[in-house]
Amino acid sequence: MQGKMSKADFELDPVLEKDCIIIGELDDCLLLLMNNSLVPWFIFVPMVEATELFELSDEHHRSMSKNINQLSQFILNKFNSTKINIAAIGNVVNQLHIHVIGRHPNDYCWPNVVWGRPEKEEYYEEKAEIILQSVRSQFGQIR
Amino acid sequence: MQGKMSKADFELDPVLEKDCIIIGELDDCLLLLMNNSLVPWFIFVPMVEATELFELSDEHHRSMSKNINQLSQFILNKFNSTKINIAAIGNVVNQLHIHVIGRHPNDYCWPNVVWGRPEKEEYYEEKAEIILQSVRSQFGQIR
Repeated sequence: MQGKMSKADFELDPVLEKDCIIIGELDDCLLLLMNNSLVPWFIFVPMVEATELFELSDEHHRSMSKNINQLSQFILNKFNSTKINIAAIGNVVNQLHIHVIGRHPNDYCWPNVVWGRPEKEEYYEEKAEIILQSVRSQFGQIR
Repeated sequence: MQGKMSKADFELDPVLEKDCIIIGELDDCLLLLMNNSLVPWFIFVPMVEATELFELSDEHHRSMSKNINQLSQFILNKFNSTKINIAAIGNVVNQLHIHVIGRHPNDYCWPNVVWGRPEKEEYYEEKAEIILQSVRSQFGQIR
């Protein structure tokens, strides 16, 4: 379905909008921070109409993969994480979105996955702002 | 860590070996079928020493992504699936492996994720063989 929608028509899914803090736009993806401080949890949302990864253009997939790689290394360096979990699921929120999460053997649900669990602690605004600034300085091209 | 190990030295993690049926080798990945007939559940294992996606070479990542895309469309066409779940988790099995799973609103744990759940029905040998043949004919280059 790629190309059906211009980026100007893109609207973030309301569930993602409610649950996340928008960091900014990075190479035709919105980059979000899940508003749950229990683990460092980021989400890429390609700004096209798509539900599956294979619907992305090669170029879009490549630039997003590069940014996911860079974000993964950033998470391992900046947070108390020893493992990255990456996933495109979308069973509840139809809009294509890719989770990139830092995990650690001492986190709240290790070694289980975080999806479908109720535990949540919203960020203090100051803490979220520090993370946002740190990500923005890592990815100079975020708008 | 890419390049530390030649493909000849690659050994499949014993947990993956126990839980899965080996379909074959596809562009420097082993392609596995999870031996659980409840959902169509495939796993790519890059034949290098790696635990995170960013450790793959660009070329390896690109060929695997292409094959994941092709397998995703195959799953939607051949099984009773309406959504693909793709994930690199690795909290339990350290060896880098990428899940590609067909999901459907009527499956056993929709809309929850399949990871960490105990439900399992092993394949009858004939049924597994049909799937293996079908995948092999879809991917002519599987060895």
